[in-house]
Amino acid sequence: MKLLKKKIMTDGKVVNDALLKVDSFLNHQIEPELMKEIGREFAERFKDAKVTKVLTIEASGIAAALMTALYLDVPLVFARKKKSAVTEENLYAAEVYSFTKKETNRVTVASEFLADGDQILIIDDFLANGEAVLGLCNIVEQAKANVVGVGIVIEKSFQPGCEKIRKAGYRLESLARIHSFSDGRVNFMQDDTK
Amino acid sequence: MKLLKKKIMTDGKVVNDALLKVDSFLNHQIEPELMKEIGREFAERFKDAKVTKVLTIEASGIAAALMTALYLDVPLVFARKKKSAVTEENLYAAEVYSFTKKETNRVTVASEFLADGDQILIIDDFLANGEAVLGLCNIVEQAKANVVGVGIVIEKSFQPGCEKIRKAGYRLESLARIHSFSDGRVNFMQDDTK
Repeated sequence: MKLLKKKIMTDGKVVNDALLKVDSFLNHQIEPELMKEIGREFAERFKDAKVTKVLTIEASGIAAALMTALYLDVPLVFARKKKSAVTEENLYAAEVYSFTKKETNRVTVASEFLADGDQILIIDDFLANGEAVLGLCNIVEQAKANVVGVGIVIEKSFQPGCEKIRKAGYRLESLARIHSFSDGRVNFMQDDTK
Repeated sequence: MKLLKKKIMTDGKVVNDALLKVDSFLNHQIEPELMKEIGREFAERFKDAKVTKVLTIEASGIAAALMTALYLDVPLVFARKKKSAVTEENLYAAEVYSFTKKETNRVTVASEFLADGDQILIIDDFLANGEAVLGLCNIVEQAKANVVGVGIVIEKSFQPGCEKIRKAGYRLESLARIHSFSDGRVNFMQDDTK
């Protein structure tokens, strides 16, 4: 997605060989118009997938997922990172390890919001090791629903997540695919031409 | 906001005398079209406040805040509940106690995203004791920015938050104001006629 890649080049900050900060427009400060275009793009790419619900994980996936759900005209569900204080017997849960934060979270979705036969589109802001996405896929399968695709705003293609998701048989669409960082610059994958 | 109050009456679940669950459309599953109308309503109510930025707190405030920011055509910033793994020297922080979760979180905003003179509209999904909103007000004031108003989706008017916010001198606009719960039903404030 050209608009997004341009934004990454102008406003992203390469912190080191593996880390890109996009706080100024994606995951701390958010530009609503950019997020709207991101939602429109995901909706376009998955328009034939008969999506019945969008699923993401709190917190930084919510904005992109909401705009996608708006364009697809389906509800959004965001998985929670720890159990709500309201007692809830019927939960689907998965353990998700975050390499960035070096902690394991219990990710949960109330079972009433995922139905047998639902066609689920998973959206997240970043893909690195793929733990969060695979945890969400696990939850969807517990509910006997189908993962019709995974939409990622920024994929770090040099980390194992994208390969793991494709090998598990899921359709993956990433709006910006990063090959590497060098000298503080972002290099996109050569075949990332959309 | 009539559409919202109707939704609360049909789909909200009164758990006990103080607790209302709105998981099915507001803070776990989200209806994008309703959220869009909520954003439009906040933008309308604060259209003369010269808002330069919308501020909320992760995670369940993000959807309403994003739609508000979209209609006001300003950026959104969401405060984080614990320090990001990326080292960040320049943070504004406030301690926020959650009565629901019985825990204190350190809420932070990177200082680069709040500027001296910014006109900040704070948006959140629920108002009960007001701790989260007052923590955000504190952060805005650390930045020498101005809180031009506080927009709340659902206010539990029988809890102390709304009074605390008004006494502190902030303009408060709540889209649904709940007087009480009785026999599993929601009673709105009599003067909540918008």
